[in-house]
Amino acid sequence: MEIYLDNAATTRCYHEVRNIVVKTMMEDYGNPSSMHRKGVAAERYLREAAQTLSGLLKVHKKEIYFTSGGTESNNLALMGTALANQRRGRHIVTSVIEHAAVSAPIAALEKQGFSVTRLPVNRKGLIDLREFEKAVTENTVLVSIMFVNNEIGSVEPVQQIGELIKKKNPSAFFYVDAIQAFGKYRIHPKRMKIDLLSASGHKIHGPKGVGFLYVNDEVRIAPMILGGGQQNGMRSGTDNVSGVAGLAVAAKKIYSNLDANNAHMYRLKERLAAGFRSMEQVKIHGMEIDEGAPHILNVSFMGIRSEVLLHTLEDREIYVSAGSACSSHNRAGNVTLSAIGCSKLELESAIRFSFCEMTQVEEIDKTLKVLHEVLPILRQYRRC
Amino acid sequence: MEIYLDNAATTRCYHEVRNIVVKTMMEDYGNPSSMHRKGVAAERYLREAAQTLSGLLKVHKKEIYFTSGGTESNNLALMGTALANQRRGRHIVTSVIEHAAVSAPIAALEKQGFSVTRLPVNRKGLIDLREFEKAVTENTVLVSIMFVNNEIGSVEPVQQIGELIKKKNPSAFFYVDAIQAFGKYRIHPKRMKIDLLSASGHKIHGPKGVGFLYVNDEVRIAPMILGGGQQNGMRSGTDNVSGVAGLAVAAKKIYSNLDANNAHMYRLKERLAAGFRSMEQVKIHGMEIDEGAPHILNVSFMGIRSEVLLHTLEDREIYVSAGSACSSHNRAGNVTLSAIGCSKLELESAIRFSFCEMTQVEEIDKTLKVLHEVLPILRQYRRC
Repeated sequence: MEIYLDNAATTRCYHEVRNIVVKTMMEDYGNPSSMHRKGVAAERYLREAAQTLSGLLKVHKKEIYFTSGGTESNNLALMGTALANQRRGRHIVTSVIEHAAVSAPIAALEKQGFSVTRLPVNRKGLIDLREFEKAVTENTVLVSIMFVNNEIGSVEPVQQIGELIKKKNPSAFFYVDAIQAFGKYRIHPKRMKIDLLSASGHKIHGPKGVGFLYVNDEVRIAPMILGGGQQNGMRSGTDNVSGVAGLAVAAKKIYSNLDANNAHMYRLKERLAAGFRSMEQVKIHGMEIDEGAPHILNVSFMGIRSEVLLHTLEDREIYVSAGSACSSHNRAGNVTLSAIGCSKLELESAIRFSFCEMTQVEEIDKTLKVLHEVLPILRQYRRC
Repeated sequence: MEIYLDNAATTRCYHEVRNIVVKTMMEDYGNPSSMHRKGVAAERYLREAAQTLSGLLKVHKKEIYFTSGGTESNNLALMGTALANQRRGRHIVTSVIEHAAVSAPIAALEKQGFSVTRLPVNRKGLIDLREFEKAVTENTVLVSIMFVNNEIGSVEPVQQIGELIKKKNPSAFFYVDAIQAFGKYRIHPKRMKIDLLSASGHKIHGPKGVGFLYVNDEVRIAPMILGGGQQNGMRSGTDNVSGVAGLAVAAKKIYSNLDANNAHMYRLKERLAAGFRSMEQVKIHGMEIDEGAPHILNVSFMGIRSEVLLHTLEDREIYVSAGSACSSHNRAGNVTLSAIGCSKLELESAIRFSFCEMTQVEEIDKTLKVLHEVLPILRQYRRC
């Protein structure tokens, strides 16, 4: 039995997603830009997807732009907003725990002359709202704070942040990386004072290679990918009909059962945490179980290197993450764990467990059972 | 019976493509950046895809970068090369018949201070090589010439162009938009002196939302999408495993039968052209049938507006294009037809027929039969 506990890295597609992807590859395969019926049929998938997503966010469908995924959404939002609105100011406020797909474009903007304030976080992974309020100035053009942290699942108070921004500097824009939050929280940008928001398909059982960006109609952004003028010129290129349709189907399904999904995942998370609490030398990171995101639990098994435990679990067909998958290539990993003040030993022994609504209680129990077996053995060979 | 003659706009996916897309969505759905076995399994698809594509192009596999499609490839190649190599010069040479996904980024570079020489083309859609040679100067950093034109199927002499560049200014880079050529021609960048080359999945029966860019290892380019550092930092974002795997499967299949595919399409093209030659007031555009690309035939039915004929054919389930689908949104369309000197009447009545290797002779015959029926009727109501 394969136990996949790396759903914050990526997820298995829903059957409904597979079906619509296949249908749009094999039957309704037209180019949405074509004038004939097959083009019109393809375009309908895009329109319906925009309708679905805008309905979930309670925004206008023309405020939804499709991209090749969360990373492109982040880049487009940040570069696009900062570069198109420089006259409003050249100062950016962000946190130290943003995903690389946010921190890297912000660093690029810094090189281009923007000044950047990077706010620290507390042990729970939360920014200090008073510090935040101070950080926003007349010169602030953009605030970028993630909704749910990808490493430890901390949940920033985005609505309060949005309100503070609009109080302090109404002309500053609020961008929220919601890649780990979309599909777990009801997100209503208008109410929360969010101007731009990104999400990704493959984190919610949709396809890889597709995401979207919500942009408040009043925000002007500069496009990044130029060409045929698709999506009102904001993102050129033949629309990825299969990806977009799959993303919308996944979003619709996950939100149709949101409360039950989350309740189930909190039960799993609490059960896993209870198991850990009964073990020695285990340290749970971040917010309280019921305060953090339902799907992420980050834990250090003191004295055991993450990679060793990861591969030991893998041998039992249990798949977890050491750090976040998305940063494993550049080995920067664990930005958040460092920021919340973890020791080197805690960092080196941290494992992220992440669930989805299809994860079974039995899988959690099996994981705990395996850990009970292997931890004492691994500790005999401890090196760190 | 549906007759799809718009394969230059997009194609139906191969069954083999569908199979691998489904497999990577439902079974091997891991994140290639994950360290565990499911991540490794996913990464293998990327490695094998790079191997397949680099094998076809006879380049090194590390010279292949995956993107979200042809348009992103074009943008990355042009912006990435020009911006990273400004010290070599700030002059770009291109043609007037490039696709919008090339001409738009070049126009953006022009706004940033690059000077641009846009070479005209003759009636066949070909640039003049002597003019070209004159256009390349010491200050030229980048040449961008398409391989196969998307509107009329003209085939530029890319190898001669590559050799002229290297003779005139060895430090200038040669970029080739091969989106309509890949899968129709054997393309060997090293031999052809091509430094960068782009292709797209959905033009060769692969998925939409994926493409690749070949970049000679000696060419430094600036990345456009920043983040987790995937693909050696050249293109961040969770890799689109399904898309990449599907693209490679499509490429492998189409090249495994290239000569037969092309011979078949030339027979179709010649048969269709012969049919047109027997009609009155029909004008075939571009190169001789056997000189142009095998899959594109562009024709003006004088006195009948393109849209009218397109919709008339659509009613008989025959799908063709008026102008190129990719530019139908901004209505710029028919850049190439204008450039080869078509009259306004020819422009307004132009239809592009485009085939694939699965197009049947019977479909061509049926199309000709329908045209014989409807053209006289439509001409009775002519308005242009």
